[in-house]
Amino acid sequence: MQKNLTISIDAMGGDFGPEVVIPGIDIALESTPELQVLLFGNEKKLIPLLDKYPKVREASTIHHCRTAITMDEKPSTALRKGRKISSMWQTIQSIKDGHSGVAISAGNTGALMAMSTIILRQMPMIERPAIAAIWPTLRGESIVLDCGATIDVTSKHLVDFAVMGEAMARAIFGLKKPTVGLLNIGVEEVKGLESVKEAGEFLREAPLPMDYYGFVEGDDIGKGTVDVVVTEGFSGNIALKTAEGTAKQIGEYLRAAMKSSIFSRIGYVFAKGAFNILRKKLDPRQNNGGVFLGLNGIVVKSHGGTDATGFASALGLAIDMAKSNLLKEIETDLKKYKKKSKKIAEQKSQK
Amino acid sequence: MQKNLTISIDAMGGDFGPEVVIPGIDIALESTPELQVLLFGNEKKLIPLLDKYPKVREASTIHHCRTAITMDEKPSTALRKGRKISSMWQTIQSIKDGHSGVAISAGNTGALMAMSTIILRQMPMIERPAIAAIWPTLRGESIVLDCGATIDVTSKHLVDFAVMGEAMARAIFGLKKPTVGLLNIGVEEVKGLESVKEAGEFLREAPLPMDYYGFVEGDDIGKGTVDVVVTEGFSGNIALKTAEGTAKQIGEYLRAAMKSSIFSRIGYVFAKGAFNILRKKLDPRQNNGGVFLGLNGIVVKSHGGTDATGFASALGLAIDMAKSNLLKEIETDLKKYKKKSKKIAEQKSQK
Repeated sequence: MQKNLTISIDAMGGDFGPEVVIPGIDIALESTPELQVLLFGNEKKLIPLLDKYPKVREASTIHHCRTAITMDEKPSTALRKGRKISSMWQTIQSIKDGHSGVAISAGNTGALMAMSTIILRQMPMIERPAIAAIWPTLRGESIVLDCGATIDVTSKHLVDFAVMGEAMARAIFGLKKPTVGLLNIGVEEVKGLESVKEAGEFLREAPLPMDYYGFVEGDDIGKGTVDVVVTEGFSGNIALKTAEGTAKQIGEYLRAAMKSSIFSRIGYVFAKGAFNILRKKLDPRQNNGGVFLGLNGIVVKSHGGTDATGFASALGLAIDMAKSNLLKEIETDLKKYKKKSKKIAEQKSQK
Repeated sequence: MQKNLTISIDAMGGDFGPEVVIPGIDIALESTPELQVLLFGNEKKLIPLLDKYPKVREASTIHHCRTAITMDEKPSTALRKGRKISSMWQTIQSIKDGHSGVAISAGNTGALMAMSTIILRQMPMIERPAIAAIWPTLRGESIVLDCGATIDVTSKHLVDFAVMGEAMARAIFGLKKPTVGLLNIGVEEVKGLESVKEAGEFLREAPLPMDYYGFVEGDDIGKGTVDVVVTEGFSGNIALKTAEGTAKQIGEYLRAAMKSSIFSRIGYVFAKGAFNILRKKLDPRQNNGGVFLGLNGIVVKSHGGTDATGFASALGLAIDMAKSNLLKEIETDLKKYKKKSKKIAEQKSQK
């Protein structure tokens, strides 16, 4: 973690590999000219592409890798086939080796999570990793975690996620005391899963630099009721995908409505600027990227099917992470609540 | 269940009680003049209101009830205070006694579910009830269940939900073989919770009048990939609320965008008809109402904060349910898969 703006990039990840990754880096370099990239992938494929993007070539160091993980490979197969030699493995290994602070891949999520966990290992006191997403809200942006890494959680895992989430909110949003809510299916204390209730009881008293809000419901995410929404990976992933689906659905309704009459078509011409603003707001490429938290290193996952603009946006997130002090923030906070956490474990074992 | 179009209505439920319920019935009578209602509530409050709505008065039989359940009462308090004497209890009791086929209330969900379960009891072979919602999609409408009744499910519960969902899709959409999907966090067979995987294995071979599609993800709900989306109550409730929140959020973005310049304001005037179409599509009142399934009787829950239009829409759902043969459909299908279900139980006990 010496150089702040060096990022390790799996050039072969995603549905389109280097064809999207290289132009994506080119876009990111416009706003971040100091970016340096360690590019892991097949030289033969990378060199001709880099000839077309001289700025990227200048900013890159190529590390040739013999194999690449495909998008549909099972994590177990990926680990067997891609151990050490794949571009994905090498990308993660490079942060382990201290060559850069953050790794990014648009590859297969399961394989990326499995390799990241094996190479980087969990942080001390963190049992299970989480994927954090940046969610656009009516108030700005919130962090939602976990979006799919860990299902079947205990209250301790949820508290870990809250700690990592508030540290991330402080690191990338610059907030002093982020508000944190636990996703639940009712705002009354009586409802919901036992693990969520227990985590709520703990967070209310936790000596952490955050403002525990209480339970929030699904519609609070988009409202921006809290800066950090904490949930387990199953419901978090379903919330994320459902919101994406709903946005797409409404976009379709809007398109159909604007074509419904000659007047609406005229109206569309006048309001084209407004529709462009809206289109940008709803563009899933603008909020691309999930951050793996809880490991000894930061790995950013870009959507596999995205284009250069989308990859550049995930890379922007990776840059934000590289500039931040996230791992240290998490570590400090973990130490703060270590005592409290032990208490919970003791109470549990007495049950 | 003699008279097909008699509905039992808790006139005191919801944030506004009879002030919304009575005008709501008035709206429903426009499209369903044959509707007869059994109205449970405080006479003193109902009679002056009915004077203003003569059509509702004509269609109603008032059953005076001394108490009403408030919106913030815990289910346990509601049961203690409202047992037998409350309008909510009496409304449900009336379907148990065969005075009507369907009950509806805009009251407190927890209390309504608790009373419904006590009075009506679970159907034979159904261990846990579910709340089914009608979800507007790009293809039309789908049924999503469970939206909050049962959390921490087993694979057997999920299969029960699938059976109830496909029966409901046949009963109210008139489909012969509805497509059914299990909500999961990845479409590959390897991912997700054990209970979901097990339910998937069973449904693939189940001798039921449905077409099992496999796993679906959050964004498939709005696409209308399947007619019936099956999940447990925690993630189902979060999906529903998240979609509501996202729709509201995009509505706000759209409003702001249309006000952003003089051109967009002019465009808005031309396209006003189109925006009205869209507004109607996104109006949560148009899709109000959840159906409690798995009990020996049909109870429809209206949103507590809705207005007369919203209550009329939930009442429309209750009318559809009353016209259908849902309970019999579910019973028949339950018998069909009884053998299969026993097998699963045996396999489980051997583990």
